[in-house]
Amino acid sequence: MSMRAITTVPPGGGVKLSEVNEEKGDGIRVRTFRTGICGTDKEIAAGKLSFARPEIGNSLIIGHEAVGVVTESNGNYEFKEGDIVVPMVRRPGSCRMCRLGRQDYCEDGEFVEAGIRGKNGFMRDEFTEDPRFLVRVENKSIQDLAVLTEPLKNVMKMKEIFQFLRMRIPWYCEDSTLSCKNMYVFGTGTEGLLISIVFKTLGLNVIEVNRHPLDENVMNYLERNKIDYLDTSSEGIDKKVKDKPMDAAIDAVGSMDVLREITDNIRNNGIAIMFGTSGQLPSSNFDVLENLVDRNLTIAGSVDGAKAHYSDAVKFIETHGKVMEMDKLITGTYEPDNLKIFMEKEKQEIKKVIAWS
Amino acid sequence: MSMRAITTVPPGGGVKLSEVNEEKGDGIRVRTFRTGICGTDKEIAAGKLSFARPEIGNSLIIGHEAVGVVTESNGNYEFKEGDIVVPMVRRPGSCRMCRLGRQDYCEDGEFVEAGIRGKNGFMRDEFTEDPRFLVRVENKSIQDLAVLTEPLKNVMKMKEIFQFLRMRIPWYCEDSTLSCKNMYVFGTGTEGLLISIVFKTLGLNVIEVNRHPLDENVMNYLERNKIDYLDTSSEGIDKKVKDKPMDAAIDAVGSMDVLREITDNIRNNGIAIMFGTSGQLPSSNFDVLENLVDRNLTIAGSVDGAKAHYSDAVKFIETHGKVMEMDKLITGTYEPDNLKIFMEKEKQEIKKVIAWS
Amino acid sequence: MSMRAITTVPPGGGVKLSEVNEEKGDGIRVRTFRTGICGTDKEIAAGKLSFARPEIGNSLIIGHEAVGVVTESNGNYEFKEGDIVVPMVRRPGSCRMCRLGRQDYCEDGEFVEAGIRGKNGFMRDEFTEDPRFLVRVENKSIQDLAVLTEPLKNVMKMKEIFQFLRMRIPWYCEDSTLSCKNMYVFGTGTEGLLISIVFKTLGLNVIEVNRHPLDENVMNYLERNKIDYLDTSSEGIDKKVKDKPMDAAIDAVGSMDVLREITDNIRNNGIAIMFGTSGQLPSSNFDVLENLVDRNLTIAGSVDGAKAHYSDAVKFIETHGKVMEMDKLITGTYEPDNLKIFMEKEKQEIKKVIAWS
Amino acid sequence: MSMRAITTVPPGGGVKLSEVNEEKGDGIRVRTFRTGICGTDKEIAAGKLSFARPEIGNSLIIGHEAVGVVTESNGNYEFKEGDIVVPMVRRPGSCRMCRLGRQDYCEDGEFVEAGIRGKNGFMRDEFTEDPRFLVRVENKSIQDLAVLTEPLKNVMKMKEIFQFLRMRIPWYCEDSTLSCKNMYVFGTGTEGLLISIVFKTLGLNVIEVNRHPLDENVMNYLERNKIDYLDTSSEGIDKKVKDKPMDAAIDAVGSMDVLREITDNIRNNGIAIMFGTSGQLPSSNFDVLENLVDRNLTIAGSVDGAKAHYSDAVKFIETHGKVMEMDKLITGTYEPDNLKIFMEKEKQEIKKVIAWS
Repeated sequence: MSMRAITTVPPGGGVKLSEVNEEKGDGIRVRTFRTGICGTDKEIAAGKLSFARPEIGNSLIIGHEAVGVVTESNGNYEFKEGDIVVPMVRRPGSCRMCRLGRQDYCEDGEFVEAGIRGKNGFMRDEFTEDPRFLVRVENKSIQDLAVLTEPLKNVMKMKEIFQFLRMRIPWYCEDSTLSCKNMYVFGTGTEGLLISIVFKTLGLNVIEVNRHPLDENVMNYLERNKIDYLDTSSEGIDKKVKDKPMDAAIDAVGSMDVLREITDNIRNNGIAIMFGTSGQLPSSNFDVLENLVDRNLTIAGSVDGAKAHYSDAVKFIETHGKVMEMDKLITGTYEPDNLKIFMEKEKQEIKKVIAWS
Repeated sequence: MSMRAITTVPPGGGVKLSEVNEEKGDGIRVRTFRTGICGTDKEIAAGKLSFARPEIGNSLIIGHEAVGVVTESNGNYEFKEGDIVVPMVRRPGSCRMCRLGRQDYCEDGEFVEAGIRGKNGFMRDEFTEDPRFLVRVENKSIQDLAVLTEPLKNVMKMKEIFQFLRMRIPWYCEDSTLSCKNMYVFGTGTEGLLISIVFKTLGLNVIEVNRHPLDENVMNYLERNKIDYLDTSSEGIDKKVKDKPMDAAIDAVGSMDVLREITDNIRNNGIAIMFGTSGQLPSSNFDVLENLVDRNLTIAGSVDGAKAHYSDAVKFIETHGKVMEMDKLITGTYEPDNLKIFMEKEKQEIKKVIAWS
Repeated sequence: MSMRAITTVPPGGGVKLSEVNEEKGDGIRVRTFRTGICGTDKEIAAGKLSFARPEIGNSLIIGHEAVGVVTESNGNYEFKEGDIVVPMVRRPGSCRMCRLGRQDYCEDGEFVEAGIRGKNGFMRDEFTEDPRFLVRVENKSIQDLAVLTEPLKNVMKMKEIFQFLRMRIPWYCEDSTLSCKNMYVFGTGTEGLLISIVFKTLGLNVIEVNRHPLDENVMNYLERNKIDYLDTSSEGIDKKVKDKPMDAAIDAVGSMDVLREITDNIRNNGIAIMFGTSGQLPSSNFDVLENLVDRNLTIAGSVDGAKAHYSDAVKFIETHGKVMEMDKLITGTYEPDNLKIFMEKEKQEIKKVIAWS
Repeated sequence: MSMRAITTVPPGGGVKLSEVNEEKGDGIRVRTFRTGICGTDKEIAAGKLSFARPEIGNSLIIGHEAVGVVTESNGNYEFKEGDIVVPMVRRPGSCRMCRLGRQDYCEDGEFVEAGIRGKNGFMRDEFTEDPRFLVRVENKSIQDLAVLTEPLKNVMKMKEIFQFLRMRIPWYCEDSTLSCKNMYVFGTGTEGLLISIVFKTLGLNVIEVNRHPLDENVMNYLERNKIDYLDTSSEGIDKKVKDKPMDAAIDAVGSMDVLREITDNIRNNGIAIMFGTSGQLPSSNFDVLENLVDRNLTIAGSVDGAKAHYSDAVKFIETHGKVMEMDKLITGTYEPDNLKIFMEKEKQEIKKVIAWS
């Protein structure tokens, strides 16, 4: 069948709205409802993602953040017509962790990622999917918000790592809660904001950090969720931590200067989770080892998430979406032919989505 | 009473053999048998350890690696005359972790360390000690080796951290052992060698790494313990890891270039423990974040050890000291007045000790 | 000041609505809004709880499930007038775990419990409370439901234990979720139902078990929350587990016969958490050891919960209260003078509460 | 080829020394050196082990505790002629845990066990083995003691479980060690004694328990290893725990009365590991639930061990065999034709072994 799809020729980049043909195949047929655009999509469009590669031929359908509606279940009993579903990005290879369902911890890199490397993505009218890689959204009232599941699943894995790492010692306050602990979150894009609200629900005090004033909508969003903001262009982090010591940190920026800010300022026994990767080199040489060692720090990298985290993410949206006003995170809905959204950053942009149906 | 002691005036440095006077006090009286010299002692002597400070007055008795013999128990039932004992270095403050007996995870830095900061050390003929900070050596045949307890207790804490961190996922081979896993240990001083032999006993393949050929005695020591050696002045680590992939790494050097070698070369889901601190800045700017994130690495700093680790260290020496030829690690025994040993590095030096009695 | 209070003379039992006098004291003044009645209250009233004891004198104000409103903060900055608060039951002694804020893991039994042993409870018009033992309810729309916080905090601790115990091995399905795992919950009172809905949110299939048909309202409640029900008076559990293997179990009954049903039917590597205690002896001699050992089972007892669990419970009600229709769990609201509710069990009773204001 | 073998016809029982014929096959050829006899062998011989079954035909070669010497490596590079090896008992099925190398946590029971069920054992002159199921003994001086590897590997798994379970809370003394903790070990056969010495090396105080006076050699063995003994025929355990509170317990008996003694006497937050299974029913009805719950106990069953535990066991014998006088545990060495050793219990018997070469 023929349909619209946004394609690129990786790794060279560029995006166009194409008409593509596809065999339906055996799996679950899904009509795409919304796809989100993230930094990775923009990098692919700009030809900056070196590991982007097509599934077959030269052209790749992009898009890895998606929500759709089942149109044909093809005899599969787990899903039925009308189900709202979110497809997974990373598909397992054959390593030990992939066989355990934890391809987010793939040992050898032999996976493919829909819309990114080796597998067509979801920026198209329809797709056919193996039911193992679909996550159902039970509560249909969050159909719009469910496009946030994919970026949110990353945060759910970070939460798993954080909860694990703090078991090393009794990493909690004198009253057993986390209410005395301050977590600094670096980066105020979609991922940074999602990290902030998820860790806020653990009872931590969350301080968002960036190096410039925020757009008013982002500032308001943080305030309504009782998340503090530190603009390091007007106040040094070293000063802030005197008031609110940094007990933990998560980075969604990917700059070596952020790593330095963390190791310079975090307290003894601190936990840092690094998610961002931008290749931004440090502005000066520095030593993280002295603090890493003397302060008994733990720094864990975290990439992707397992199906369990997609499920957790859907549940989080179902239960917190309204009270935490997650609709405010979607700042623009566009038609598939509006390709300039891959190139431009709008005023007050958080997450832009494309409406397919 | 009057006795000999090696003193310094911190943080300015210098060492001299002094005659000091001391009230005996209430605790366990210990006659010093051996004290070890480590890099920290040499730094204090050279005036390079900025945080060195006296207990009272201007002068500090140095020495934190020690083994002694109880001469008076002063009514304390835990120890009796003739017991061989190792004193602990770090003494707790009042924070939550210190109160749990885990001053090695002190939260606020309000501890003192014998022979280093705020408390006189053990390079003297005798000292009086609180029984809480003495660890008994049951097997008297290791009296000579027990001076290695203090550096070895650091390794026992690293082992605790390693065993904890690998619980995150099934971090073991297809046959449940660690026999397929390679651990790279950076640094071939006493600490590096102790790390190597301890992790060897966990069933890992251990590869020691340094940037020069080793003295013959060190090379022989590694060989007899079936530990591989990589001299990066003759073979790149990137080449070595093709044969023996780096699954885990421990650093006892403290150079940012080592951190880079680790993050550049370690496999997915790798575990790195950083122990060394030398303030050596990187030779060029580099990005650790991409690998840290994409490979799901965990990097933990580790400093000091708890009493449990001193006990583990004593037990390790009792059970492995002979078969792992730990006596070969002590390469020189000197008189207290031979102060030039603080300044010089002998040919084939590993650990030098001072004989007090 | 003078106020109404429901008192007993422990351990003899009996309840009456008394007029009591109390000094206000220094803490936070709270006007009681609702108190819940649980099995423990009924046992105290019936004189069956041997460890019930007064705070002073002969008489004890009962009631440990409560929600109230702050009327005076007495200069304390953490709480202000109008705040909705839930008071904690167990107050720490001086053991190591109590000092860590984990009196739920008290090592020596030197705690008191409000409304049960050694401390007056909350079935009275007002009380003064140490702010350390008050948990704030941020979302005022759950003021009615917040009386469920206390029984729910027990479940939050069970969840902590469950999440810990399953780390022993990769205790999850091939797709990384828990969707293939069946948890059997024994007991269909308030605690059993709360256990069921909390573990349902983890993605497990939950099967409630009891030995009789359920009241229609309870049956409906389970159905709406997609929780299965097994009435063992009509179908054997051994038959049920052929369809839905028992991977985990939680008991809220306290009968040795339930322990047997669990160990007889649970799968290898099964996790069981025991919460109920009723002193019900087994109906026949039996051996749990063979299955416990051969199946590598883990059975953990769980009592009480820490402040962190009260906070988790409040958050659970805030986020799941509406969608999981937790209001259906409160089946009757009574005046304080209606003391017969301590003696009788109503048709369709789940949780009965007393309205104080 | 033809050789001697001790065979039975399961589950009926009986043992005889037979001449058997066997194809050599492709694996590693091993000449049996010693095999141990344990309770399971005696039960098979007595026809009491209902699950005993042959590999093919009607007859089973028994024997699962063994040590041998490689005679032909058949081109396999991991082993060479002369290597001392211990074969594993349980062989994996196809479940998830078996595929992870953890058949000791087999999920579905689809394993076989050499000498017990579905696979011929090692009481024969020679056998051919898959190298995956052989564990090498590096230190040839323990060739005699290595027959203890198989029973000891069970203890190594118990240690893994114990170390895991105590991470739930800071389960250690005020000085971070385990020196204030008492572990009661029930059962004074080979397994009980091995448990005692292994947990002694963790720094716990170990109290062995049985219901009768011990043979002099066993009593001496405990004394030399500083393990206390409680004979419950002369002193109640309730009295003993006043002096030495029971913090943890391990059972190698398998009687429900022992379970009761543990739950009646263990302290809050206690850890119990159950290894014994004898089907001994309780002497009276009793309730374990009240203590299990109110004291937050954790009770874990443990069966078998993984290859990692065999390796740990070999290392334990290599390092502790001499100092802990493990040779004293082998109380008799017999010829293969001396079949009455399966029926009789000698005076002072601990472990009896058969010498094959």
